[in-house]
This record gives sequence, C-alpha cells and structure tokens, in this order.
Amino acid sequence: MHEVEIKALLVDPVHNSPVILLKDRQSDMVVPVWIGNPEATAIAMELQNKTFPRPLTHDLLKEAIIALGGEVEKVIIDHIQDGTYYATIFIQDSEGNVQELDARPSDTVALALRMNSPIYISDEVFEASAIELPLAEDDEEREQFKQFVEKMDLAEFKRLSQ
Amino acid sequence: MHEVEIKALLVDPVHNSPVILLKDRQSDMVVPVWIGNPEATAIAMELQNKTFPRPLTHDLLKEAIIALGGEVEKVIIDHIQDGTYYATIFIQDSEGNVQELDARPSDTVALALRMNSPIYISDEVFEASAIELPLAEDDEEREQFKQFVEKMDLAEFKRLSQ
Repeated sequence: MHEVEIKALLVDPVHNSPVILLKDRQSDMVVPVWIGNPEATAIAMELQNKTFPRPLTHDLLKEAIIALGGEVEKVIIDHIQDGTYYATIFIQDSEGNVQELDARPSDTVALALRMNSPIYISDEVFEASAIELPLAEDDEEREQFKQFVEKMDLAEFKRLSQ
Repeated sequence: MHEVEIKALLVDPVHNSPVILLKDRQSDMVVPVWIGNPEATAIAMELQNKTFPRPLTHDLLKEAIIALGGEVEKVIIDHIQDGTYYATIFIQDSEGNVQELDARPSDTVALALRMNSPIYISDEVFEASAIELPLAEDDEEREQFKQFVEKMDLAEFKRLSQ
C-alpha cells in the first residue's frame, strides 16, 4: 500500500481531459488518474482553498457525512478493471463501525481533500500504473498547474451552479 | 408549501443551460430552476432509470447517507437571494434527530430522486418564480424531453467519469 498526495492537476493534451498526478510519499513515482471536469473543478477549488458561494456536490457529501456522525478514515484506489480505476472510501460511523463505499477515484480524492483523510493506492494499482514523475520539480510544473487553475472560468461556473 | 414533481428537463436556448421544470402537484404552475450540466446528467440518469457502470457523485452521496443510517425525509427549495435559489435537505439520523443541510436545488433534486423523497418549494419561492406550464401536455413536450436526453453523449461521459 502506498500513501500518495496530489502532485499536480493538469490537462492531458491528448485526451483534452483533466488528469491528477498522485505522488507516492516514499518515492518519486506518480500514478496518473484521468478524471471528469466537474470532479477536477471540485478538486481544484479545494487545492486553492477557495470556497464557492454555494456548496458544491462534494461539499454537500462532506456535510452529510459529518451531520450523520461519520468520519472518513481513509480512501484507497484499490484495483483496475478494463482500464477503469476503482476506489473504496472507508467511513467510520458514530458507533465506530467502518463502512466501505465503492467510488470513483475522482470523487474519492475530492472527498479526501475536504476531510483531510489519507489517500492510498494498492500495490496492484501502483505496480500497473506508477511512472517516474514526468515533470521536473521546477517552475515548469508550477506554471502548468497555475495555467490549469487560471483557465477555469469561475464566473461561468457560478452561473451554472445554482 | 408546495409539493412538486419534475415535469421536464430541458435546455434553455437563451442561456444554453439545462433547466428543470418543477410542477406543483396541486395546480398547473411550474417553477423553472436553472442547473449545471453535471447535475443535469445526474438527474437525467435517474429519470431514465439508467445506471452508470460506476457510481456518480450523487449515487455516492446516497450510499454514504444510507451507510451511516440516515434517511432523507424531505427537501425544500426555500428561498431566493440575488437570483440564486437556496435549498435545505432534511436528513433523519439513526437516532431520529433531523439534520438540516444547506444545498443547491440541483443537488437537492438529484438526491431526492434517488432517495424517493418528497420535494417541496416554499410559498416565498413559489410566489416569486412560479409560471403557467409553458408546454402543452402534448407530443411537443415529450419530444423536447426526448431530444434532451438523447443529446447526452454517454460514451463521452463514460470516458470522463472514471
């Protein structure tokens, strides 16, 4: 099992799709996970510590879990099938029992960021998907990340999100 | 307080944005609510009784509430401020206490559909926003709804949603 952190949130120019790079805390290996635009927005808002005037769906998910006395213990991206990544969210309920919820990695990461919960990747997924960090630890990486978040049109997003 | 049902899910050609028409169960008045594309997809999937291979964010929200012993008692679109609609989700926890969660109408409707919970609109919102049903109860309405759901490219959506 590998604990990871979000290293970058970029747009893959080949698929024109957002991708998050999840970096192993113990090495320079990263696992890229392609995600949808709404989930990318939910992740970017949290990475920027921005709050939207109204709760996004993942904010609502967080509030529902807290209101019901739950805690997100950890999330694990645990297997791949036919090119799709599967994840599990481990929620401890108010009686201390742990409930396991099947989820997409994108929702899992958006929620884990909001709950300050650790994100893990199973050895199986790590061995199948991890690559050397493709971006040097330099200004280029920071610039790409900056460009991605600046490209999001928050005014347009606000109009659509009531 | 007015109990409503989803009468149609259309694209507003002026704003090129999805809009749901919430119809009063006791009259022919409807309240139009403009929503975002991801929430429209979440609502359309449920209206069509389609299940996606992987849980959407609102499916995850439903599963989290159930796993923690909660029940969605009702949802209310309760006020409008500066053109934005506000809603509240009433969740009963496992001890019978009712928790109130602030939410956007779009998330509220997507969740209520999944939980078979009643959807209400306050008198204040109803008086400010209700209009006569703009579409006759005829083939045109059904055709517009059909066009909307057929326009959604599920293959593209699938690619982005892992």
